[in-house]
Amino acid sequence: MTKGERTRAKLVDSTGELLRRQGYHATGLADIVAESGAPRGSLYFYFPGGKDELAITALRASGDDWRARIRRVIAGATDLGAGFDAIVAAFADELEASGWDSGCPVAGVALEATSPPVRAAIADHFQRWIDLSVDFLAAFGIAAAPAHELSLVALSSIEGALLIARVMRSREPLLAVARSLRVLIAHARSAER
Amino acid sequence: MTKGERTRAKLVDSTGELLRRQGYHATGLADIVAESGAPRGSLYFYFPGGKDELAITALRASGDDWRARIRRVIAGATDLGAGFDAIVAAFADELEASGWDSGCPVAGVALEATSPPVRAAIADHFQRWIDLSVDFLAAFGIAAAPAHELSLVALSSIEGALLIARVMRSREPLLAVARSLRVLIAHARSAER
Repeated sequence: MTKGERTRAKLVDSTGELLRRQGYHATGLADIVAESGAPRGSLYFYFPGGKDELAITALRASGDDWRARIRRVIAGATDLGAGFDAIVAAFADELEASGWDSGCPVAGVALEATSPPVRAAIADHFQRWIDLSVDFLAAFGIAAAPAHELSLVALSSIEGALLIARVMRSREPLLAVARSLRVLIAHARSAER
Repeated sequence: MTKGERTRAKLVDSTGELLRRQGYHATGLADIVAESGAPRGSLYFYFPGGKDELAITALRASGDDWRARIRRVIAGATDLGAGFDAIVAAFADELEASGWDSGCPVAGVALEATSPPVRAAIADHFQRWIDLSVDFLAAFGIAAAPAHELSLVALSSIEGALLIARVMRSREPLLAVARSLRVLIAHARSAER
């Protein structure tokens, strides 16, 4: 990495972390400069579009990391139930190890009123998460329509359980969701027969 | 209501709305004074504990309203599946009517790093939501352990679907979750037999 690339990467990482921790509206450009240690002038040099351009880049990078982690976790899964168990266990481990602080990197901003391009970046992350899950279900023989339905439910319930688990400081919501996904997978299989 | 009670209520309502829309960290006392139209001095008169006391009061009030709405929606339900369908339909209607803006009033703050008393107020809301759901399930003959498990999954999946539906501007995640809850209720019943 050149020095410029390192500066740019620091700006993106710091923005992603601030967005996760305190949201979009509370994060000012001065916070990003302070957290990243990057020179003030570098912000508009690398991101002439300012806060929105930087936020979109950071949300995309966080989403890419998040989905890459899911992909690694399910790569070795021998069945669907075990795959979703492994996703949920990985998230629960990380959340607990962080002192119940580290959840979905884009969820907080998703709940704020933001500009259309910021919202579109978050919607795109969720759509890719769903596509990844549909492919995983298809690889184990679930047809397109039930795979789409199951993926919407998996994304919703894991996302919600991450939020509830964080507040309650308990893995239980995540574990309950993983068990429910096993029931729903079995139901999708039996409905196909 | 006396004039003082009206001023206090305006402060609480405005705080609740700002917390929902932009979160805890972005909401300053000056914003609350401006949004409520209350005299500046009234804030510390009614809330000597400042922002945290006001935020906790507002989050409790929003949580109470939210659960009261759930209670009204399920009061007339003739079966469990219809009850959860009605909850989800009511939330989906409100979310869509608001231009995909109005979701769970405490979820945004739940994802920020806040003080222990603020987090406890949110955890208390979720716990009461679970208790309400457990009572509803018990009234239709579901035993305590599966009712608790189902309620954790219902809360997680509805909370997550509200977030995904908001970003995707679609009722579909909420409808898919309602259908999945019917499958899980039937499974809980058959496991008991």
